[in-house]
Amino acid sequence: MESTGRDTVGLYEGILSTRAIRRYTDEAAPDEDLRDMLFAATRAPSGSNRQPFRFLVLTSGPVAQEAKRLIGTGARRFWEAKRAADGYDRGSGQMEDSPKSRLARTMQHYVDDFERVPVLVLPCYLGYRAPAPSDGASVYPACQNLLLAARALGYGGVLTGWHQSVETDLRALLAIPDQAVISATITLGRPVGHHGPVRRRPLPELVYGERWGEAPAWAVDPPGAGHTAAGPPGGT
Amino acid sequence: MESTGRDTVGLYEGILSTRAIRRYTDEAAPDEDLRDMLFAATRAPSGSNRQPFRFLVLTSGPVAQEAKRLIGTGARRFWEAKRAADGYDRGSGQMEDSPKSRLARTMQHYVDDFERVPVLVLPCYLGYRAPAPSDGASVYPACQNLLLAARALGYGGVLTGWHQSVETDLRALLAIPDQAVISATITLGRPVGHHGPVRRRPLPELVYGERWGEAPAWAVDPPGAGHTAAGPPGGT
Repeated sequence: MESTGRDTVGLYEGILSTRAIRRYTDEAAPDEDLRDMLFAATRAPSGSNRQPFRFLVLTSGPVAQEAKRLIGTGARRFWEAKRAADGYDRGSGQMEDSPKSRLARTMQHYVDDFERVPVLVLPCYLGYRAPAPSDGASVYPACQNLLLAARALGYGGVLTGWHQSVETDLRALLAIPDQAVISATITLGRPVGHHGPVRRRPLPELVYGERWGEAPAWAVDPPGAGHTAAGPPGGT
Repeated sequence: MESTGRDTVGLYEGILSTRAIRRYTDEAAPDEDLRDMLFAATRAPSGSNRQPFRFLVLTSGPVAQEAKRLIGTGARRFWEAKRAADGYDRGSGQMEDSPKSRLARTMQHYVDDFERVPVLVLPCYLGYRAPAPSDGASVYPACQNLLLAARALGYGGVLTGWHQSVETDLRALLAIPDQAVISATITLGRPVGHHGPVRRRPLPELVYGERWGEAPAWAVDPPGAGHTAAGPPGGT
């Protein structure tokens, strides 16, 4: 295995500091890096080790360009509606340096430049029985492996649902069979900006002990954890 | 953050060598390790950063013991049926050292001793809209983070669906509300045995380029990759 020697960050620290990266340089990913990222993705567990995950990896060339154009068009439409509905331009969204307006700028840039993302990955779930809520247990761990492996190799990425509004066209373009569910749209590239600590709710809101809603005494954030309210911004 | 200094394996190498661990020593996990594993789990991404994941963490005490007993009972029933239906005792399952009979022994031991697993985690998904196949994108990345963080801190675990047949009783015992879906049963502990490379299908069967079913030239396994057929064994 060629894993040894590529690591510049430890496993635990890497998990804690893998952020969603939505801005990329124009640098293409060499074949070896693509291989190593996808190899790591496919090491994930799945139910009975069936490995029902499949990854469409689109980089350059006319089909990849068309896939990016399709998804980019859907993403811009979706973001425009969400920006208005979730009030990204109201309240603190009017202050240039608020987290809300910074996220809105990043998202706008992301969808505006979608056609330039270096690597577009469509993870799919290949169904073999009636759909169940637990199907995701056999594809999303592989998606998380992909994002973490990208971080390990100097890349960054984000998991989105941008394919959803253009799924019919995408399926035709890429010859995706009916029994495959497109599980996500993941984009990858060399980050503009940096990985680093992420912001989440305080641990006692997310971790319970022997009864729902009641956190055990040990479930406290380590010093330095960054907090955020959950979900998209309200009107504040 | 207290992450630095706990790492003994690199991020990329850790992803490649995190196996399903189903045998544990009786050692309990100290509070600090529980905290750090769950903290890592909750750093995972989720749709719009809503963080709809919740983790019930059960260790010792009467409620935890009852939860383990419930799930263990369901697991033994399920495994007995699966062992017969999937032919684990036929063909190569009759040879003591075949992969099939080794897996069968491990599984039998796992369900027989379920009440002794040091840490039982029930990750839940807190629904906020009509269920969709993409819901898993907001809970299973956190489950994978948990398994990887366990590996980072010297533990091991496995993601199962053992809760499914005893869900009604579990919900009552733990006061799990109706809008929460139990997404998985994860067990964790100090491994008997070792982490190491996992076996998956060859990469060209899992990774496609611009058309479904057609692997790009770079999608080849690095040297030393271990292969497996997918899914449970047939009659061979």
